[in-house]
Amino acid sequence: MAASSLLSFENEVFGLYAWYATAVTLKMMFMSLYVSQYRLRRRIVVNPEDVRGDKEKAFRIDPDIERGRRCHRNDMENIPPFLVVGLLYVLTAPTVSSATWHFRIFVISRFFHTVAYLTPLPQPSRALGYFVGMCATVSMAINVLKIGHM
Amino acid sequence: MAASSLLSFENEVFGLYAWYATAVTLKMMFMSLYVSQYRLRRRIVVNPEDVRGDKEKAFRIDPDIERGRRCHRNDMENIPPFLVVGLLYVLTAPTVSSATWHFRIFVISRFFHTVAYLTPLPQPSRALGYFVGMCATVSMAINVLKIGHM
Amino acid sequence: MAASSLLSFENEVFGLYAWYATAVTLKMMFMSLYVSQYRLRRRIVVNPEDVRGDKEKAFRIDPDIERGRRCHRNDMENIPPFLVVGLLYVLTAPTVSSATWHFRIFVISRFFHTVAYLTPLPQPSRALGYFVGMCATVSMAINVLKIGHM
Repeated sequence: MAASSLLSFENEVFGLYAWYATAVTLKMMFMSLYVSQYRLRRRIVVNPEDVRGDKEKAFRIDPDIERGRRCHRNDMENIPPFLVVGLLYVLTAPTVSSATWHFRIFVISRFFHTVAYLTPLPQPSRALGYFVGMCATVSMAINVLKIGHM
Repeated sequence: MAASSLLSFENEVFGLYAWYATAVTLKMMFMSLYVSQYRLRRRIVVNPEDVRGDKEKAFRIDPDIERGRRCHRNDMENIPPFLVVGLLYVLTAPTVSSATWHFRIFVISRFFHTVAYLTPLPQPSRALGYFVGMCATVSMAINVLKIGHM
Repeated sequence: MAASSLLSFENEVFGLYAWYATAVTLKMMFMSLYVSQYRLRRRIVVNPEDVRGDKEKAFRIDPDIERGRRCHRNDMENIPPFLVVGLLYVLTAPTVSSATWHFRIFVISRFFHTVAYLTPLPQPSRALGYFVGMCATVSMAINVLKIGHM
């Protein structure tokens, strides 16, 4: 296959990347809604213009909201690196099998991380989800660095 | 048009994506400057090595800085997903009209969100800006998921 | 060179982008490990399920952890814009020399920013690292906006 057509849905590896990248991005965006529904239901706000009802209680700290925000920040630390490194990795022309497992392991580990964070599951569940995902990104990054140049 | 030339300025949809993606990224980067100018003018810092003048006052909480930081975080939660999903959406070969409206609605809603956050405008202005932008990204994501595969 | 092959390791500018983008992304991911090792060694946690040993001391504020988190957030504010704008800039077909310097200046300034933040070096070291990096991204953004269209 010509290198120029690697970023195309005709390239199976790209079709896989597009699906997994979009799925894990939607998961990350879902965290906003997860936090928002607690804010709405419990009438807890961060801005004065958002207050409805009791002003005293509106700014209290809620453990579920804080947990959701920490989980979201962890996603923001880990998912954008995967999205960029994954796209560059597609251009290194990996085998379908190798690409599938990199994308699948990363995305499953991040969904597991979210479940482990929000339930919460006892440690080291969450740490494992974080660590396995990071390894998948680092493995792809090494492949990119080998072919790219300074 | 051959799939291999979709990511090129010869493709009108890509030229639109490049313009809107860059404009909204610059808007997100502007948030750093918005917060920094308050820090400099009011001599409020986060690190001991940044203190100039009164040490007692240097670490106080400033409502405008905190508001700017929350607005920036909201951008960081919403704009990177648009940037990645939007690029994948360009590769699904949408019509120029469909792409224009997706990009335009997202970017206008995020500029409106910033104005609503920083003014601040009464709710649900800010919530609307957030929600409309998210819908544009989700709509593009659905198109990508349809063509990509697991 | 045909526009359709700009995003390929056969294009020297893309090979440069891929290397620098991946290197600076790994640097950003390293911030998680930097913060985590302090958490593990000092037994400081953010979630109740992570507590090992003394529950009272487990949730205390640690200056090194907070500094690492601020450095990481600054990366998250500045590196994703570079990654996206840099990729679009590759498609504007810049000269190898121009591209090399944009990528190199950005990446060196961000490594310097991290050293300046964590040491910490006296100001304006850190501010300089931040500002120079931002200029490189803005310069590439202007090139993209010139060729893209609304």
